[in-house]
Amino acid sequence: MSDTTISGAPALTDEAARLDAADELRAKRDAFALDDAVYLDGNSLGALPRGVPARLADVITREWGSLRIRSWEESGWWTAPERIGDRVGHLVGAAPGQVVVGDSTSVNVFKAVVGAVRIAQARGAHRDQILVDEATFPTDGYIAESAARMTGCTLRPVAAADVPTAVGPRTAVALVNHADYRTGRLHDLPGTTAAVHAAGALVVWDLCHSAGALPVGLDAHGVDLAVGCTYKYLNGGPGSPAYLYVAHEHQPRFDSPLPGWNSHADPFGMEPAYAPADGAVRGRVGTPDILSMLALEAALEVWDDVAIEAVRAKSLALTDFFLRCVGTYVPAGRVASITPVEHERRGSQVALRCADAGAVMAELVRRGVVGDFRNPDVLRFGFTPLYTGFADVERAARVLAEVLADGPADGRAGEPSESGVAG
Amino acid sequence: MSDTTISGAPALTDEAARLDAADELRAKRDAFALDDAVYLDGNSLGALPRGVPARLADVITREWGSLRIRSWEESGWWTAPERIGDRVGHLVGAAPGQVVVGDSTSVNVFKAVVGAVRIAQARGAHRDQILVDEATFPTDGYIAESAARMTGCTLRPVAAADVPTAVGPRTAVALVNHADYRTGRLHDLPGTTAAVHAAGALVVWDLCHSAGALPVGLDAHGVDLAVGCTYKYLNGGPGSPAYLYVAHEHQPRFDSPLPGWNSHADPFGMEPAYAPADGAVRGRVGTPDILSMLALEAALEVWDDVAIEAVRAKSLALTDFFLRCVGTYVPAGRVASITPVEHERRGSQVALRCADAGAVMAELVRRGVVGDFRNPDVLRFGFTPLYTGFADVERAARVLAEVLADGPADGRAGEPSESGVAG
Repeated sequence: MSDTTISGAPALTDEAARLDAADELRAKRDAFALDDAVYLDGNSLGALPRGVPARLADVITREWGSLRIRSWEESGWWTAPERIGDRVGHLVGAAPGQVVVGDSTSVNVFKAVVGAVRIAQARGAHRDQILVDEATFPTDGYIAESAARMTGCTLRPVAAADVPTAVGPRTAVALVNHADYRTGRLHDLPGTTAAVHAAGALVVWDLCHSAGALPVGLDAHGVDLAVGCTYKYLNGGPGSPAYLYVAHEHQPRFDSPLPGWNSHADPFGMEPAYAPADGAVRGRVGTPDILSMLALEAALEVWDDVAIEAVRAKSLALTDFFLRCVGTYVPAGRVASITPVEHERRGSQVALRCADAGAVMAELVRRGVVGDFRNPDVLRFGFTPLYTGFADVERAARVLAEVLADGPADGRAGEPSESGVAG
Repeated sequence: MSDTTISGAPALTDEAARLDAADELRAKRDAFALDDAVYLDGNSLGALPRGVPARLADVITREWGSLRIRSWEESGWWTAPERIGDRVGHLVGAAPGQVVVGDSTSVNVFKAVVGAVRIAQARGAHRDQILVDEATFPTDGYIAESAARMTGCTLRPVAAADVPTAVGPRTAVALVNHADYRTGRLHDLPGTTAAVHAAGALVVWDLCHSAGALPVGLDAHGVDLAVGCTYKYLNGGPGSPAYLYVAHEHQPRFDSPLPGWNSHADPFGMEPAYAPADGAVRGRVGTPDILSMLALEAALEVWDDVAIEAVRAKSLALTDFFLRCVGTYVPAGRVASITPVEHERRGSQVALRCADAGAVMAELVRRGVVGDFRNPDVLRFGFTPLYTGFADVERAARVLAEVLADGPADGRAGEPSESGVAG
């Protein structure tokens, strides 16, 4: 597939080679298990960091198999949620002591939203509304609805961009995605946070599609609470534990709806009465899932010498270059980007609206370019700067053009495939 | 340590050998990674099944590292919670389709108690009380308190044995432990369930200390909901995912407080409105923790040719024999069992009250007999029939007698060590 007659390809191929040669993150690719495919689905499941298999083998065989219960103390299992939380925190601009890892994103959304409502209501004013990003990945909306029902609030879906104007004296909390999972649009975290605060409410940010791809600056922007997963740009593995950020200033009033024994001030005292621990530990619930958690810890080692600003710069360069390659290779009108052009409104993915998107993505995967498909008509390509190169980007755009050229005529535009994730 | 002058030892050593020779589960020990220690802490963290390391290496290297997102479908990741749930269900007497694996025990207690309250209240009667086993492992009480607060109920702690008389027309749900984590006492699941039903309420059983050690019979006894962990007698590994049982009859009305996208009727439809899936899947929440979950699946393979009734018979023989050995070896008055003598009231552990329990357990561990210590004065020994033999039991009792003979005089009875789990 390297020789092609697509117009413009030689020039862009040369440019990709120059960009790769100048890429200061290029060597990081060797830290991941990759093959000949162009993997542009790291925004769904990050690739395997090469250090993980040996670390997990040691955790299983020695720490569990040989030390057994002694490992809760001797191997640092018990404190893993806050220790790894600090590592994640570093990547999203949180000083130590504010992040714990554990549970799923959904469960952490529940803790964060209920906890935020309780803090807002304890301030005295009558606040009984929860604003939620109306285009959110669905689980946040489902869980926010449950949180609203269980705290006597009502849920009001609004566009993320409209939160600053929708927030008001009745608002307890706004739950907003930093980057939209479908369009890749990056929302204004500093401005939205400031607007929510000006109205006396709290904001919970969902960082699933931004953490590890760009600077978040939780502390710098005064974010109240945040959640996120670790299996996308943080490469923690399938279903690796999520995290919860509770800013220092809110920790003394954070009142978790899931006060499990791991969040007790004296967990081994086995006291019948609950007394919450101080600090981020208050966000823990039950016994931490050690195998998945220590796989995540090993995966995070690839970040040791990486600046998130360099990641962001490369991410924007990759998505810029992809849009240029698509614009050059793909016949006009065949796809339309729904990802914002402006850098400050773009995350680390490009979403292209395309007729027959499901069938097109299946063929792309067959030809070694792995993205994913989102109902009803979106081709989604995620760019992980730690392991995606410019030649990958050029190849992805070129294969997309080939698939579209080879495929059925686009007479079926407006009748997209509904065949689901499998394609 | 095999030659000893302790009175009665030769006879009991011989008897242990005879019992081991006649043990039909003896060969199962080879399925676990064990060393020279006598491991009697499988009721805290089960030993490593030998099949786990190779399976996890394949999950990490091939399924994650090579297939990546394709594994959600091709490697069966997406359906793992209900597939593995059925395997767990088989061990606790639940027909397929009623158990899902995922989240921690604490999170599942929240789902089960809130879900049970909603079912009870939907029946029309005014039911606003939650009964909770007053001696419960603390997390159940903490979470039940939160569930009560968030559903407008009050929480009433009662002794597990008193639930049948305490339950009444105001009771929505009773949360009871099948086996007490401290004393090893087995509670009357059939009788208590019947009494709770007679009062029109629902019962949630916590099976952490019974699943994998004895027959539970969830379906046979008409249990409503149940939860349990998988890292004790099920040997799933540190912090392996817990499970939730919702009986078929309650599934259509089970209204989860954690309605994450994994419990949606069409999870990939990405619909903004929540619509619950049918069946046990309704108990799922977020993306399942695949590494820990598939380690558990591999661990459960040791059960393929095991009848839980045989496990129970051996468990009782082991605890009987341990009590006899302790009675023979340990000077009268130095320890007192708080585990019931009657088989029908005994789980798979023996708890001995002992002065200086913390220091005694530390010395036992140093001499190769691993149990654990529970505040303030309890030595706790768990017996896992799949890998514990009668010679282990005899040795544990003998070393205990030696430690007590070598240790400080028991003038400090009533002033137990408070040195915690590490002690």
